[in-house]
Amino acid sequence: MRMNSNRQIVQLLQDRKVRKFRARFLELHPMDQVELLTTFSKEQRDQVYHYLSPKEFAEIFQGLESWQQIEIFSELHVSYAVEVINNMYLDDIADFLGELPKETQELYLKKMNQQNAAEVKCLLKYPEQTAGSVMTTEFINIKETDTVATVFEQLRREVVDAETIYYLYVVNQLDDLVGVVSLRDLIVADLEQRIVEIMSGRVVAVDVNTDQKEVTTLIKRYDFIALPVTSQGKLVGVVTVDDAIDVDEEETTEDFHKMATVSKLGKSLKEAGIFFLYRKRISWLVLLVFFNIFSGAGIAFFEDTISAHIALVFFLPLLIDSGGNAGSQSATLMIRALATGEIRIRDWAQLFVREITVATLLGASMGLAVSLIGLYRGGIEIAFVVALSMLTVVIIGSLIGMSLPFIFSRFKWDPATASAPLITSLVDMMGVVIYFSIATWLLSI
Amino acid sequence: MRMNSNRQIVQLLQDRKVRKFRARFLELHPMDQVELLTTFSKEQRDQVYHYLSPKEFAEIFQGLESWQQIEIFSELHVSYAVEVINNMYLDDIADFLGELPKETQELYLKKMNQQNAAEVKCLLKYPEQTAGSVMTTEFINIKETDTVATVFEQLRREVVDAETIYYLYVVNQLDDLVGVVSLRDLIVADLEQRIVEIMSGRVVAVDVNTDQKEVTTLIKRYDFIALPVTSQGKLVGVVTVDDAIDVDEEETTEDFHKMATVSKLGKSLKEAGIFFLYRKRISWLVLLVFFNIFSGAGIAFFEDTISAHIALVFFLPLLIDSGGNAGSQSATLMIRALATGEIRIRDWAQLFVREITVATLLGASMGLAVSLIGLYRGGIEIAFVVALSMLTVVIIGSLIGMSLPFIFSRFKWDPATASAPLITSLVDMMGVVIYFSIATWLLSI
Repeated sequence: MRMNSNRQIVQLLQDRKVRKFRARFLELHPMDQVELLTTFSKEQRDQVYHYLSPKEFAEIFQGLESWQQIEIFSELHVSYAVEVINNMYLDDIADFLGELPKETQELYLKKMNQQNAAEVKCLLKYPEQTAGSVMTTEFINIKETDTVATVFEQLRREVVDAETIYYLYVVNQLDDLVGVVSLRDLIVADLEQRIVEIMSGRVVAVDVNTDQKEVTTLIKRYDFIALPVTSQGKLVGVVTVDDAIDVDEEETTEDFHKMATVSKLGKSLKEAGIFFLYRKRISWLVLLVFFNIFSGAGIAFFEDTISAHIALVFFLPLLIDSGGNAGSQSATLMIRALATGEIRIRDWAQLFVREITVATLLGASMGLAVSLIGLYRGGIEIAFVVALSMLTVVIIGSLIGMSLPFIFSRFKWDPATASAPLITSLVDMMGVVIYFSIATWLLSI
Repeated sequence: MRMNSNRQIVQLLQDRKVRKFRARFLELHPMDQVELLTTFSKEQRDQVYHYLSPKEFAEIFQGLESWQQIEIFSELHVSYAVEVINNMYLDDIADFLGELPKETQELYLKKMNQQNAAEVKCLLKYPEQTAGSVMTTEFINIKETDTVATVFEQLRREVVDAETIYYLYVVNQLDDLVGVVSLRDLIVADLEQRIVEIMSGRVVAVDVNTDQKEVTTLIKRYDFIALPVTSQGKLVGVVTVDDAIDVDEEETTEDFHKMATVSKLGKSLKEAGIFFLYRKRISWLVLLVFFNIFSGAGIAFFEDTISAHIALVFFLPLLIDSGGNAGSQSATLMIRALATGEIRIRDWAQLFVREITVATLLGASMGLAVSLIGLYRGGIEIAFVVALSMLTVVIIGSLIGMSLPFIFSRFKWDPATASAPLITSLVDMMGVVIYFSIATWLLSI
């Protein structure tokens, strides 16, 4: 149904039926307007800029990804662009202008509404990845001495400009954050009550310099709709749940990519260019090549054993992969549990002991499975060598896999760096040495 | 500071200072109460059950993970337990009772508040993973013919029981969902206005049977705080953003685990037992062993070539790992982009073409790197064999890695099943055949 309706809207655009196009297009949810806009040709987009007011277009513009914003922005007339900016939320303006070259940024800061420009400049100063860089400054702040009735009046006046109103943060005369009142509390309160009587003093807040990851963790942990941000105890902004969700999605994507040794993309996969992707992928791949040379060196060391028992090579991929696979499982379980805060560094010892038992069971089962193949391929001796190697490799692989994320965490690196490819390469080295050592030892008797 | 305050609270418990303990403990945010409770001994918990009313304890109970709830619940006196249930939100009751054995479930359904029990029974009927199973039925529903003033009065009466009040969903006389009004709209409206005049008719809703994944995607996409749930057009519930975040975290964790071939845990990693973890990990590990046997078979087929040029084994782990690593990168990029809805199945062809170019560049760079080592280890011929194999393996590995998630998606399997270990094992097979084929062909001339 939506596909169909979209086709009709495009037709109206083609037929240049301005009024009908506007009626149908503006009826859509802003996010659906965004999606439709991204399917338009340059020509169609130019029409849209004419048909919609800067205010209407600002709502769409705010929903675009930053690389799309930059592209679209370059197509706008300067005066139209300035009006679009004047109709955006301040935190969105700061996010967008932050992506532009310094000169363009300053040009628009000069041309836009000057009161807003001052606040945007403030926001631009907060380092990326901090609470300050994701917060909004358009919130309503109320005084502890206000009455409920006054606050309702204030709400009616200020609600249009505010990004969030469901929690109202209370300040004292010095502008220190002292409490919080939900709109819910306000509705059930008597109109003559003072805010200080109905507010809750147990308000969780973060400093402007707090890492954005910690901000989203708090919002998720406490089921907040918004979280106040302070600077030296003074209320300076609010992070809303929808912005926190966006941050969280970004961070999770980054974790996924790290686990496959892809560097931070920071843009849409779909639109990423060939050389861009090459750069993001090559460094780890080459680094891992050099790790693997050690596996090769291990093999070179055991060349005599291999020449004497060429059947051993048959089991090489099997053994080293199995160790890597078991290790990747352990690493991923730990990485995710560390990311969600379910486990902490101090839990390592306890988990290590459990991992030994689990890995022994896994290794024994897999050793049993491959010993049958070993029996068939090379007789009882080979079967024994392969089974024992499997058990050892799986145990060592699992222990490396589970410990590495903790070690990285300990050194303040992202535990997600303990990627499956890294674990595989590390365990391969160990695997080669263990396998051929066991073989040399047992088969030379 | 919090650590310190927690220690004081534990001390008050030890000294049996009921009043002081209550004052300090209840001052904490419910989520902090939860965290503190989980550090208590059985004895200390028994004290807490005595010191807190069922209503106070219900707030903590709702914040526990379900496996913790089951453990704690077994420690409560039946009459206390019933009162705890009576003070919980209906959707939380349903979630919890759904985890209990049928008999216990029915026992508590009989003993609890009967009006609530009827609604909980309804909720229990919705299959897991659907909108129905995560929604709340405690919402406020307003009529399009109401005035703003009436709605404010209604709010004051019903707000205590409702889980969400920031968006009010509007129904007509047949109880069909026809619109939505935010509390924000309500505040700026005149008291005499009718709801139908200020409501928005463009309301996004989902059916009770919608997959929970889709529900969270919508909430994230549109930055909703709540999403109404309908059954045959009638409003039956609301999914709130905090529940959607919990669902999303669960699903993301599942994706992470799948990518490392760990089956769905469904419980805390920290508390998972040894045999439980063994079961969740062993099946894929053994399955992959059998994949790897094919790599072994490939090696067996080329035994003559290997015997003649034993130096080739040196490069085996290097080549097959590199193909697997490049493939894991591609797969992970696709899996994540498919999960966030950034790309769709129909984008495959376009991305495939780009992947060929990127992979050729990656393979060429890595081929160049290893050819130097080849030159050193085995002379010009080996260097050429290894470089050509690297190029081919990386291209084929990348293309398998990027295509598999699409193929899985196409067959309605979870794309995350295209895990790094699976890709590695598949690419190993190809790698062995490619490497030794090229070697046999070039070295026998």
